[in-house]
Amino acid sequence: MNYCSHCGAKVKQETPPGDHLPRYVCSLCGTIHYENPKMVVGAIPEWEDKILLCRRAIEPRYGLWTLPAGFMENDETTAQAAARETAEEAHARVEIVALYALYNLPHISQVHLFFRSRLLDLDFMPGIESLEVALFSEAAIPWEELAFSSVSNTLRHFFEDRRKGEFDLHFGDITLPLDEKKGA
Amino acid sequence: MNYCSHCGAKVKQETPPGDHLPRYVCSLCGTIHYENPKMVVGAIPEWEDKILLCRRAIEPRYGLWTLPAGFMENDETTAQAAARETAEEAHARVEIVALYALYNLPHISQVHLFFRSRLLDLDFMPGIESLEVALFSEAAIPWEELAFSSVSNTLRHFFEDRRKGEFDLHFGDITLPLDEKKGA
Repeated sequence: MNYCSHCGAKVKQETPPGDHLPRYVCSLCGTIHYENPKMVVGAIPEWEDKILLCRRAIEPRYGLWTLPAGFMENDETTAQAAARETAEEAHARVEIVALYALYNLPHISQVHLFFRSRLLDLDFMPGIESLEVALFSEAAIPWEELAFSSVSNTLRHFFEDRRKGEFDLHFGDITLPLDEKKGA
Repeated sequence: MNYCSHCGAKVKQETPPGDHLPRYVCSLCGTIHYENPKMVVGAIPEWEDKILLCRRAIEPRYGLWTLPAGFMENDETTAQAAARETAEEAHARVEIVALYALYNLPHISQVHLFFRSRLLDLDFMPGIESLEVALFSEAAIPWEELAFSSVSNTLRHFFEDRRKGEFDLHFGDITLPLDEKKGA
């Protein structure tokens, strides 16, 4: 950040009075520009014993498989975000069931949420950010070609819990080596 | 948003190709400035049968009581944010136990999280954003003087669950009338 988005003057980094962290502060109008973590929200779309995955048509992780997920938008709920991302990436309709997993990724200032959901019909097809969309049984999941740690953790817990017949909220921290930081 | 924080030129609102929402886009360098929901994270600090509350020394809701909570910062986890806010607002040390409540507040583009936590000692005192800090039994909670709906919902569920001896994750949407929108 170089300029104030409010008045266009230069910003400088300083710790405002009463604060404990350096912020970008406008040298002219004094606006403090806070930066905060972003939420990535997705769905685990279930159809019988299968899960819907999308193969990414965009970076990062082009060509790898993911649960439908993306950045939460203003003016929506987390459940709405999960259903919207599923519609965008897989042209699929889901009924959201329950929050299932929350992962902290402090090294990239993100929080990832995944919701259990029921796929409502089989009329799915790749959205603009997907190369392919397909249903996978547990045995067929491409574990070595999953795009993100939060997705592989969520799927691993999901199949374990399904065997137990009991779905508990999963909560954890994911910290990746430096060379994986960009993607999540 | 009027100016590009990257290059200082004017921004305009337009929907980028392949996107579905209008964004602030720089007329000179083309940077797209996304705006996303913010997370507010707090703790439910328990000491025996009592809960620690803070009386707000800042707007919004000056003078009303709240659980210690605030905006999550970059580079931290949600649990770290809950403990940090408790330290800042009440100079209190907590051990985080578990995620207890998640509320969507789409009208102000926020998500609120509260964690059950154990207060580790009684050496608390008001931080710079609090007028008072005190322990309350269920019967003594100032229900009519609580600052935020997410706090009153969390406390109501907490005491119900404590009676049942079982703490389940609470998840819900909070939408307030227009005149309450600013505060949360």
